[in-house]
Amino acid sequence: MTARRRSRLGVDLGAVFDLVGGVLRWVGLAFIAPTLVALFAGEAIWPWLAAGGAASGTGLLLDRLTHERRADRIGQREGFLVIALVWLLVPVFGALPFVLSGEPQLSAPVDAYFEAMSGFTATGGSVVPSIEELGEATQFWRQLSHWLGGMGIIVLAIAVLPRLRVGGRRLLQSELAGPTELEKFGATIRETARNLWSLYVGLTLVATLVLASVGWLGLDPAMTPWQAFAHASSAMALGGFSPQGESVAAFAPISQWILVVVMVVAGINFLRLFNVIFKQRAKELLRDEEVRLYGGFLLVATALLLAELLRSGDYAGEEAVRQSAFQATSIMTTTGFATADYTLWGSLATVTLLLLMFVGASAGSTGGSIKVVRHLLLFRIVRRDLAQAAHPHVVVPVRKNGIVVDEQALRSTVLFVLLYLFVFALGSLGLVIDAERTGVELSAFDAIGAAASSIGNVGPAFGDAGPYGSFASYSNLSTAILTALMWLGRVEIVPVAVLLTRTFWRP
Amino acid sequence: MTARRRSRLGVDLGAVFDLVGGVLRWVGLAFIAPTLVALFAGEAIWPWLAAGGAASGTGLLLDRLTHERRADRIGQREGFLVIALVWLLVPVFGALPFVLSGEPQLSAPVDAYFEAMSGFTATGGSVVPSIEELGEATQFWRQLSHWLGGMGIIVLAIAVLPRLRVGGRRLLQSELAGPTELEKFGATIRETARNLWSLYVGLTLVATLVLASVGWLGLDPAMTPWQAFAHASSAMALGGFSPQGESVAAFAPISQWILVVVMVVAGINFLRLFNVIFKQRAKELLRDEEVRLYGGFLLVATALLLAELLRSGDYAGEEAVRQSAFQATSIMTTTGFATADYTLWGSLATVTLLLLMFVGASAGSTGGSIKVVRHLLLFRIVRRDLAQAAHPHVVVPVRKNGIVVDEQALRSTVLFVLLYLFVFALGSLGLVIDAERTGVELSAFDAIGAAASSIGNVGPAFGDAGPYGSFASYSNLSTAILTALMWLGRVEIVPVAVLLTRTFWRP
Ligand SMILES: [K+]
Ligand SMILES: [K+]
Repeated sequence: MTARRRSRLGVDLGAVFDLVGGVLRWVGLAFIAPTLVALFAGEAIWPWLAAGGAASGTGLLLDRLTHERRADRIGQREGFLVIALVWLLVPVFGALPFVLSGEPQLSAPVDAYFEAMSGFTATGGSVVPSIEELGEATQFWRQLSHWLGGMGIIVLAIAVLPRLRVGGRRLLQSELAGPTELEKFGATIRETARNLWSLYVGLTLVATLVLASVGWLGLDPAMTPWQAFAHASSAMALGGFSPQGESVAAFAPISQWILVVVMVVAGINFLRLFNVIFKQRAKELLRDEEVRLYGGFLLVATALLLAELLRSGDYAGEEAVRQSAFQATSIMTTTGFATADYTLWGSLATVTLLLLMFVGASAGSTGGSIKVVRHLLLFRIVRRDLAQAAHPHVVVPVRKNGIVVDEQALRSTVLFVLLYLFVFALGSLGLVIDAERTGVELSAFDAIGAAASSIGNVGPAFGDAGPYGSFASYSNLSTAILTALMWLGRVEIVPVAVLLTRTFWRP
Repeated sequence: MTARRRSRLGVDLGAVFDLVGGVLRWVGLAFIAPTLVALFAGEAIWPWLAAGGAASGTGLLLDRLTHERRADRIGQREGFLVIALVWLLVPVFGALPFVLSGEPQLSAPVDAYFEAMSGFTATGGSVVPSIEELGEATQFWRQLSHWLGGMGIIVLAIAVLPRLRVGGRRLLQSELAGPTELEKFGATIRETARNLWSLYVGLTLVATLVLASVGWLGLDPAMTPWQAFAHASSAMALGGFSPQGESVAAFAPISQWILVVVMVVAGINFLRLFNVIFKQRAKELLRDEEVRLYGGFLLVATALLLAELLRSGDYAGEEAVRQSAFQATSIMTTTGFATADYTLWGSLATVTLLLLMFVGASAGSTGGSIKVVRHLLLFRIVRRDLAQAAHPHVVVPVRKNGIVVDEQALRSTVLFVLLYLFVFALGSLGLVIDAERTGVELSAFDAIGAAASSIGNVGPAFGDAGPYGSFASYSNLSTAILTALMWLGRVEIVPVAVLLTRTFWRP
């Protein structure tokens, strides 16, 4: 049977379902946390138990159907399929409690699925108009889904599931956002995944404690321990959900500055951060070309926003700098927090923020979008090919941090960027076609912004969907388009796009 | 001296100036035509004589300074410099008569240079609010600059200048918009250039006669012989200037349909057209993958606009089809004519038109932008690299019309597209920075549209700069940015971008 299916398909579906099942079984355990919150808050606990049971049950069922341990058959193509399916299915179970609990603002399945996808992909866009009216368990689950999805369910699975010893490297390579080097970061791939998650947990704890201390010291009375955890975990995931309708504007300037630092740190490659913290290699960090370009982008973006704000006269002094730095950092790292309604700012800020949505944070961080290292490589490709245009017979390699980047990696970078821009354009067009169909008022710019923000896993966009608005006015089909864009952005498109090629399914 | 300059610089500036001088000497002759028009219209002729004299004089001076015949020293790099300089300098002389004649709407040098650049690059955007109030010679010169620039001054120079026998092939290859094959189109490169120009002249004559007959037959009383020539030449150049403030809306539906056909034909690769017309190879045209994709894009674009127009209820029946087909063809082929103010249409039309600005016509046509063949190659690159992602060890070539495209050509395509998008983004940002600086009201979308339209050599954009508006409200610096974008778009960026690399100037 297996042999025959293999020969017909070329992809070992049994191994794929086995692995997806293994992940789902464990995802079910995550529902224990919101169940406890519901219990203490006096809310119904059965929706959370049911969703957790459904996830684990589905996982067990898939395990049964594929009772052999086949994870060693996870090749390149099986890996793509696992990644595509995990990120498609986990939000299905994540959305269940929203629907089951009859949460009025999330009762439509398409809305609930959007919210869960936005949560797990650490996007942070919302269809909920009044965040503060959500139940406490729902609030908590939104933040937790960010945090679990930020460093990644698959990385977590590699850290804890023994069956991933063999296929894990390929999975981790595909899953770790952007091209980065896994070498010398752990003796085994499992150790690497564990190191990543330990660092993530550690940094989240530190950020939570620092924010909570600001509250305890009376510097920011609004910063309760729960708010500290909610915002620290959301910032570490570069997610953007906040239990506050005002987002981070609800907190004192000192908390806002702390969150700028948390976002900047979370936007750095975790492999680099690990070396800095555990191996005292701070110099390596400052010499790293991606880190430098990342810093350069942040400074230029902040300066552009500052120019806008100072000329408009709406802000001055420290507040102008803080508003600029916060919004620039939040959008560029693809977090999506806000301390001001930037949809009211001028064209310079608007264009800057739209362009930032295409920048993203570093490879190996929790952020989305194109990512700084790819921009670095594109710059280098352009420089190399221009030199070649002038001197056709001179062969020049592309280097990153002094090391030659192989042509295969350059082609992958170009492939991703082309796919990214193509899906973005198609998404924008889909949104305006649907707006025309349903008669919903949606400007061309707002459609472009919503598509850019969703595929970049940023979250807020422009117009109605600004940082203090929501995607509630979008039709069901548009909501589905945005959900698909978030999914494609999180898996970095290729694992889904290959499924559409004929050669993928051939032996 | 020469040897030393060569060893210091690596680029033979003497040969470059010699060639630029040769081109300018002949460009001066073009001013005879508007001088005659001014004479018959009773307008001052000295501005036209002075400008023509200045062009030819500068050409002769450059010839003197570089008195040896050095065109055989035109290599790859010298070719880039010639192209960059010719397209920068010719509009300088083209703008002179606007300033000298004291034309009130073009008296500022920056505006006059914009208008001349828009003319020669066949862009068709204008800073003139009331076209019909321009003098007759100015009207004529605007149309003539389109027509001369459309097929290209450099192609014309190759056809007529004996000194271009050797370096001509490289120049023609760089100058002929987009990657295309020059083989089997003429025994010598000079014959190729002559064939191109003969075909261009012939098609312009046919289009003029057809349009004029519509006038003679009384089917469209507005279509005088002058209007027929003005619109036929503008359409053949995919330019977009019209002596009518209403553009093509001033004419009857039959004239509009004829112009749709002219634009579609002018947007096809002239090498293919030549084979169809002179070698009866019509089947080859229909089998050509670029032609098919070109047709496909036009049909989809027309359908999207039609959906918008029918739902809005503003148009019905033949008029809805005509308005959709006309605007889709005009924007996609980068012509820029209009039969309606599309800035009043809905978001679906707006996004469609913005995306069309990035499509362009075929390689080897007179159009601008990215061009269909590059989109075809990008699709193929994506398909190939996706197959490679699933099967890392299988090497698959990219084919066009069944023939393998070499990797160098693919890399050039990617290089161009990356540069194009980068310059477009930078241009958009420049426009909003300047709008912020000057306090001019310019929305983010309008800035993006203006940059896209200018670099794509389309012409009209959105907002104030729509098809029935002008760029008059843009500040001097913004006008200069748009002028630079038109220039970069016309030379396809690479010839200018290489000048900024250090290796270009090295021996
Ligand atoms: K986000
Ligand atoms: K044009």
